[in-house]
Amino acid sequence: MAKYSVDLPDIENILSLNPRVQTYSNLLPSSNTKENKKHWKRNIDKKCVVCPSLENNFDDIKPTTLSERGALKEAARCLKCADAPCQKSCPTQLDIKSFITSIANKNYYGAAKAIFSDNPLGITCGMVCPTSDLCVGGCNLQATEEGPINIGGLQQFATEIFSKMGVKQTRDPRTPKLKNPNSKIVLLGAGPASLSCATFLGRLGYDNITIYEKNQYIGGLSASEIPQYRLPISVVNFEIQLVQDLGVKIETGRSLHVKDITIEKLLNQDVKAVFIGIGLPESKPNKLFTNLTCDMGFYTSKDFLPKVSEASKPNMCPCKSALRRLPKLHGNVIVLGAGDTAFDCATSALRCGAKKVFVVFRRGFTNIRAVPEEVSVAVEEKCELMGFLSPHSVEVREGKIKSVTFKRTEEADDGRWIEDSEQLTTIKANFLISAFGSGLYDNNIIDALKPLEINEYNLPKVNFHTMQSSHPAIWCGGDIAGVAETTVESVNDGKTAAWYIHCHLESIPLNTKPKLPLFHTEIDDVDISVEVCGLNFENPFGLASAPPTTSSAMIRRALEQGWGFVVTKTFSLEKDLVTNCSPRIIRGVTSGENYGPQQGSFLNIELISEKHEKYWLKSIKELKKDFPQKIIIASIMCALIEEDWKELATKAENSGADALELNLSCPHGMGERGMGLACGQIPEYVRTIAGWNYHKQRIELSQAAQEGGASGVTSINTVSGLMNIKSNDTPWPGVGLDKRTTYGGVSGNAIRPMALRAVSAIANKMPGYPILATGGIDSADVALQFLQCGASVLQICSAVQNQDFTLINDYCTGLKALLYLRNRLPIWNGQSPPTLKHQRGKPVEDLYGSNGKKLPHFGSYKVEREEQISQIHKNQINVCINDVDSNKIGNYSNSVPKIKDIIGKALPRIGAYNDLNLKQQVVALIDDDMCINCGKCYMACNDSGYQAIHFDPETHIPKVNDDCTGCTLCLSVCPIIDCITMVPKSIPHIVKRGIPQSEIKFVHALN
Amino acid sequence: MAKYSVDLPDIENILSLNPRVQTYSNLLPSSNTKENKKHWKRNIDKKCVVCPSLENNFDDIKPTTLSERGALKEAARCLKCADAPCQKSCPTQLDIKSFITSIANKNYYGAAKAIFSDNPLGITCGMVCPTSDLCVGGCNLQATEEGPINIGGLQQFATEIFSKMGVKQTRDPRTPKLKNPNSKIVLLGAGPASLSCATFLGRLGYDNITIYEKNQYIGGLSASEIPQYRLPISVVNFEIQLVQDLGVKIETGRSLHVKDITIEKLLNQDVKAVFIGIGLPESKPNKLFTNLTCDMGFYTSKDFLPKVSEASKPNMCPCKSALRRLPKLHGNVIVLGAGDTAFDCATSALRCGAKKVFVVFRRGFTNIRAVPEEVSVAVEEKCELMGFLSPHSVEVREGKIKSVTFKRTEEADDGRWIEDSEQLTTIKANFLISAFGSGLYDNNIIDALKPLEINEYNLPKVNFHTMQSSHPAIWCGGDIAGVAETTVESVNDGKTAAWYIHCHLESIPLNTKPKLPLFHTEIDDVDISVEVCGLNFENPFGLASAPPTTSSAMIRRALEQGWGFVVTKTFSLEKDLVTNCSPRIIRGVTSGENYGPQQGSFLNIELISEKHEKYWLKSIKELKKDFPQKIIIASIMCALIEEDWKELATKAENSGADALELNLSCPHGMGERGMGLACGQIPEYVRTIAGWNYHKQRIELSQAAQEGGASGVTSINTVSGLMNIKSNDTPWPGVGLDKRTTYGGVSGNAIRPMALRAVSAIANKMPGYPILATGGIDSADVALQFLQCGASVLQICSAVQNQDFTLINDYCTGLKALLYLRNRLPIWNGQSPPTLKHQRGKPVEDLYGSNGKKLPHFGSYKVEREEQISQIHKNQINVCINDVDSNKIGNYSNSVPKIKDIIGKALPRIGAYNDLNLKQQVVALIDDDMCINCGKCYMACNDSGYQAIHFDPETHIPKVNDDCTGCTLCLSVCPIIDCITMVPKSIPHIVKRGIPQSEIKFVHALN
Repeated sequence: MAKYSVDLPDIENILSLNPRVQTYSNLLPSSNTKENKKHWKRNIDKKCVVCPSLENNFDDIKPTTLSERGALKEAARCLKCADAPCQKSCPTQLDIKSFITSIANKNYYGAAKAIFSDNPLGITCGMVCPTSDLCVGGCNLQATEEGPINIGGLQQFATEIFSKMGVKQTRDPRTPKLKNPNSKIVLLGAGPASLSCATFLGRLGYDNITIYEKNQYIGGLSASEIPQYRLPISVVNFEIQLVQDLGVKIETGRSLHVKDITIEKLLNQDVKAVFIGIGLPESKPNKLFTNLTCDMGFYTSKDFLPKVSEASKPNMCPCKSALRRLPKLHGNVIVLGAGDTAFDCATSALRCGAKKVFVVFRRGFTNIRAVPEEVSVAVEEKCELMGFLSPHSVEVREGKIKSVTFKRTEEADDGRWIEDSEQLTTIKANFLISAFGSGLYDNNIIDALKPLEINEYNLPKVNFHTMQSSHPAIWCGGDIAGVAETTVESVNDGKTAAWYIHCHLESIPLNTKPKLPLFHTEIDDVDISVEVCGLNFENPFGLASAPPTTSSAMIRRALEQGWGFVVTKTFSLEKDLVTNCSPRIIRGVTSGENYGPQQGSFLNIELISEKHEKYWLKSIKELKKDFPQKIIIASIMCALIEEDWKELATKAENSGADALELNLSCPHGMGERGMGLACGQIPEYVRTIAGWNYHKQRIELSQAAQEGGASGVTSINTVSGLMNIKSNDTPWPGVGLDKRTTYGGVSGNAIRPMALRAVSAIANKMPGYPILATGGIDSADVALQFLQCGASVLQICSAVQNQDFTLINDYCTGLKALLYLRNRLPIWNGQSPPTLKHQRGKPVEDLYGSNGKKLPHFGSYKVEREEQISQIHKNQINVCINDVDSNKIGNYSNSVPKIKDIIGKALPRIGAYNDLNLKQQVVALIDDDMCINCGKCYMACNDSGYQAIHFDPETHIPKVNDDCTGCTLCLSVCPIIDCITMVPKSIPHIVKRGIPQSEIKFVHALN
Repeated sequence: MAKYSVDLPDIENILSLNPRVQTYSNLLPSSNTKENKKHWKRNIDKKCVVCPSLENNFDDIKPTTLSERGALKEAARCLKCADAPCQKSCPTQLDIKSFITSIANKNYYGAAKAIFSDNPLGITCGMVCPTSDLCVGGCNLQATEEGPINIGGLQQFATEIFSKMGVKQTRDPRTPKLKNPNSKIVLLGAGPASLSCATFLGRLGYDNITIYEKNQYIGGLSASEIPQYRLPISVVNFEIQLVQDLGVKIETGRSLHVKDITIEKLLNQDVKAVFIGIGLPESKPNKLFTNLTCDMGFYTSKDFLPKVSEASKPNMCPCKSALRRLPKLHGNVIVLGAGDTAFDCATSALRCGAKKVFVVFRRGFTNIRAVPEEVSVAVEEKCELMGFLSPHSVEVREGKIKSVTFKRTEEADDGRWIEDSEQLTTIKANFLISAFGSGLYDNNIIDALKPLEINEYNLPKVNFHTMQSSHPAIWCGGDIAGVAETTVESVNDGKTAAWYIHCHLESIPLNTKPKLPLFHTEIDDVDISVEVCGLNFENPFGLASAPPTTSSAMIRRALEQGWGFVVTKTFSLEKDLVTNCSPRIIRGVTSGENYGPQQGSFLNIELISEKHEKYWLKSIKELKKDFPQKIIIASIMCALIEEDWKELATKAENSGADALELNLSCPHGMGERGMGLACGQIPEYVRTIAGWNYHKQRIELSQAAQEGGASGVTSINTVSGLMNIKSNDTPWPGVGLDKRTTYGGVSGNAIRPMALRAVSAIANKMPGYPILATGGIDSADVALQFLQCGASVLQICSAVQNQDFTLINDYCTGLKALLYLRNRLPIWNGQSPPTLKHQRGKPVEDLYGSNGKKLPHFGSYKVEREEQISQIHKNQINVCINDVDSNKIGNYSNSVPKIKDIIGKALPRIGAYNDLNLKQQVVALIDDDMCINCGKCYMACNDSGYQAIHFDPETHIPKVNDDCTGCTLCLSVCPIIDCITMVPKSIPHIVKRGIPQSEIKFVHALN
């Protein structure tokens, strides 16, 4: 009877849900599955026609919101296209590809900087842009099955993280001085257009900018009309603060009105430029509704939405203590219109107590103006849509609306829309909200616009190229200007006007190429230069000797983009000139079936440079002349012949190279000629070659190099490998008709663990010895790790192969941010804040079922969750709970380290196994709220570990038991970041030796 | 003046669209972007209210269809959950996790086998299942931002590839013999229920099964009602063929009818079991429509859809030559109903010439019964939806329908629905299609059911657990049985009935655990055993000495699941017992920010087994006793002490182990004790340890091992590395309060290139020497590559850590399929057929613009494409063009190789660089039709290559020029499989040396 090799009954029990190979078909009658599937249902049950009440619930409903994990996945998927159509479709021409690159590289500051540079209301627009009609509409990934990138969500993610960094906007000190920095500039209306315009003027250097706002709150439609669940007021406030950081003054309670501010008065007060961004303040009038009042149950969107905002947005008004109340709705609510505002009214009405909302519009579904993303939210919340109906009359009884009657509309064959008063449809309703658009009708405002020329809609005439009005000192933007239909277009109006105001004030010709300054903060002023071997590197990022340095014209372009140094493609004496085969650079399969962006590795069988020594020597001379501040390292290779090395080294030195890299490590091809790795793997040769008498700094590989006199080493080159074989027995790459191959060099992230090991080992053994690290460096985040492991500067190749030279910008902003935040936000990991408890990127409440156990997020548990949440909100007196202004963070220290201060910082912790503390063990802890119930932890523990996780058959919530040995595999396979954490073990650590403890003779002390 | 290091003007021109670091904000007035974005638009323009005509266009419209790339991406994303809710929500209880695992592993046969095992209509259901209400509704990824898996699309993908393999269904030879294999079984109606029922009865071994079908075509609703653009007839025919492969007979033109087949007659004809699966043949009658005819413009869905099918499905009828015509519609078409059939009618009507389609239904949007995926297709095709309307009258003039008038419906407060005849709405219409459901009303059929008991709907009373009717020999399934509402539920009815028919015919107690046989083909009979060192491995897949063999109970479970061999976790003498630290196994970062499934690597600092030698010795004895056919290899380790090795080896041998693995390669921890890698890196030690006199086979590492007498080597172990450092300078894993680490072993795909290199190098140097390969083997596809490189058998660890022991099933079916297909489908790569030209998984037409250039797939080009396609379809006389029955493939050879025949097959092509042919160069060729215009090829060529790709600023189509050197980087970064291919270079290969050719002294011959 087997005794040692069988599971005990309790383990058998744990294993009951572990997968087994199927030996027969499964059989369950359909009627059973019809019931069972309800238990597991996570999406909307189409049979459910009523949602739990949304009363008072202003939680985020944006389907685009992303957790860090979601953002990283999405950013990795982005192709970072050339001449990207997303950017071309963005009104602010935001460099989307670049900011998504930075997110993928965990450089959230870099991403935010790119966003705010082109769009000062970057968070707002990330949240409210109708992206399917803008950037996302052009996304090239629409051409693939997985669909376009969630650009809005990524924009929101990066900028929100930035908002938690506690960093102010500053003026870039390199901004050219103005002739008239104190020109008086006035902006009317503190909405998106003015805030954007003021930002760019502030960045340009204007010191006397005032925004006047008629309301007591700032933000325009973002504050008053866009609901809290789409755009929290904290975001609006944060972006206002960014504007104020630049010294822009904002006065509330001041309006464009014959009795207050008028254009004529401003012009008389020595104001040099005026920007009008007051929006369209009134609802379109409709005779049908003239006698209807709020008391009767009638609202226009212009009445309704601000009331909802004031009650649901914390501290929106200065009268912060006043308890605002939501408009109290009940029964049926009819919303008229098919624009975005109508849908905002509809979903807001549900939060004000409406039982059922009908969105009624004149034309058909195919004519709905609102973006699909808004419509689907309303449909999900069970609003009913009714088309082909035009209001005919409103029935009022006892001072309350009872119903609304509609005429049927129809599109005639000639495309005209006709209304048929014979065909009437009546819908019972307690409330009616009209959202048929807005305009400017108040003569007190219209008159205050004098002397501007006015068009047939009472709006100022505007040049759509410059946003200038008929008066040379007055500009307009936003709704009132007639182009913008969205917040982002208003922002761009303000941006456009800012440039032309600047041209006007500083007498710059209008056809000058615009030079609006980028977003700037203290982070951009961080010094990331580093000195190595007496050479000053302006930043530690350089191009490795590899395909990106194939030609010197490429090197020139790279230096222009900002790379700190380059190592030329290795060149040889003329007699050793090589010729490449093709194919020769292939994608790695180390990350599975990954096509396109972010290849985890490449393999190449490319040799050293095919170009002549003369080409390189002349090129180096030219480059050093044009870029004296940049470091140019010449990489050279010869056979084991002293004269050859001396000759080539002398030539390279004379060309002006700052340093030489002696290539002793090319793993393929060259070895057969007695070059490259053939020399580099034998310490004696390395010592010899390095020891030959050169005149200048030399940088190469290994301890022997130091003994030979090398000033430093480059570590590591590619790792020799064979990537894949096709089913017809041919390798890839396969050269020639007979498809032969040779072992190639593997580069990229796949070899990073080997590179980090090599760098840290050299650094630990040879403290202070300069190391030019290479091997899978693809972000500032990774660069920091190499620095912590002892690298001095960093060489890049595969990351550029995956993308382009502009990466340098991301690396520099990323490293600056890491240094800046290092002592300020010690609980962050680099630029990553601690993970909030979430599901699908949305915060989760800590809810328990009637049995006292945590409620999962599916089936009847989900229903119970929704009901509990609904109750919590219903019972709230003050609505505003979910929008804590989290911008305040503890400032631990203001000191920003230099690169030299962090080099080697991790080394003391890297050492021998015997130095590890075996008494301080850890165990896994699973967060029930974040768990998505996949059971990956459970399966990993079962089949690769210790059977220490129980998986509940009903709730699918895993629970770690006392058998956990802290191996960490569960965490390693968990799909959710920080859902599993390792915590100190609190019970005694008894190792299961497989036989009774008493039978063991030796004492195995935990050292 | 720089001369060598600047780009020539033509290169500058090429570079104009290459990314640059932004130094100023971008500025473009909003009015410009409003225009520009139209040029780049790829998604639906919401402002466009009319689509190009869909007349005669029956191309696939399923948003779920996947290309191989799409399928691989989607399958990689699937979490492969424990006790997966998708499976629990599938009526056929399909093992979805397993089939998606197989797709991810490129084992499409394995996936298809899993699918057909539980669902004989697997392709059909992959195409038509309302998955959001079934499997997808339970997907745990609903809890993440990226959303649930496209399960239907994956199912369709794998089964369609299988259909191209040209393999027949066979009966599993191991199926137990029946007592009465010739029991006469009759099935009525050749729809999904009967086809499923017949399949399982056929698999069980019944030889006398006949299906009678009243129509001239087979397939039931799949053929007659589901439109070609959702389910092509070739799929229906293929699945019918699979049923017929099992010997099932099908007779057409025979119906359940008092004048033909009746139940009583069948029972009198010695039929032992009858299955009724005739569906619901008639439309629900409605008095309003009694006098309306097709000529007048009235159809029921039961009239309309079959007419559309007959005209649009190639060869559906036996009268293949007859040219069927689509119902000719025009003007407005009203479809009544809100079920899936109504939406099929609506989208079909557009293809029959309707100008505008209104889908009109009684209740609201929130009550639509159709699945969201069907509704959104109709909305995308611009059908108008109108709710709250119930038909009141149809207006006919001159024998043609002119309009339909509706009553308004309303939900009363008590939930009742009331109709108001006072409120009438008239919609002009030329055609009316009623899709209000179906039933059984024909007394000729009802009477033919005698003696069955009938319920109030005229349908047989059915036991929903067994699908048995009131008569013990009669079963029912599908629509007529009253449970199924979908094809897949009908299939499950048939499956359920099959089991209980079997119980009835073979007198098996009803409470017996069902044993319905799996899908089986010749592939499953392929022999994948292999002999190594005289040991017979039933399959070449074993568990490596690693966490999956932590305990012998785990090994027992693994062997039960089908693993061919195991290597125990390495154990030592008692005096060398170890204790682990924690944390110790972490996820690799070599694939970027990848969380959850398919980790590309792990790093561990785990030592050898913590368990006592006695435990292992006893365990091995037990395992060998219970699994005599399996190979158990004992992995052992000692310090460099001859007595120790001899003692432990002798003990291990005596325990019954088939072989010993001498562990000389553990890269961490053990080395400090003078064990593991400390011994293994010195050839002399290896030779010595291997040479000590053991009695049995021994298997270890390196050439010295052979000299020492080892029978083979395991290659490779993990590779020493350091995975990552947090921003606070602590490494991960960090042990103890001071968070120290040591270098660990990197495993998984990241080290596969090194492993393939090592294996092929050993095999090339030591032909025939047994190699137990390990290092990133995670599929049969990869296993084959290791075999081709000379491996004898294969060890797995990381792949199991990523998933579970059931992987063995995928590996075995996968390897069998690869061997089976090897000589049959030589143009495939393994199980991958050649890539069809596609966009978004859909075939693309080869279209040119008026300028003679290829048309891209965005903006005005897209519109032009759609118009051209619309014209092509409109002008078609015969509609059926896009459904070529592609199941016929050339049979090159029927010989199936053995594993020994393929071992080392790639080795002759792997060798020195000097053996590569530098005269036979290649260049890149880009397929304009598949291109998604991202420009990754262009950027890679610019910044890491040769500036040899031009990128058109208007069309974004890249074009390779004569400067291409064939480096292959463009292909390596292209996101679309086979969009770029390398083709032989036809112009002379002149290497650019950077200086004039005349200045070069040495002649560099292309060898």
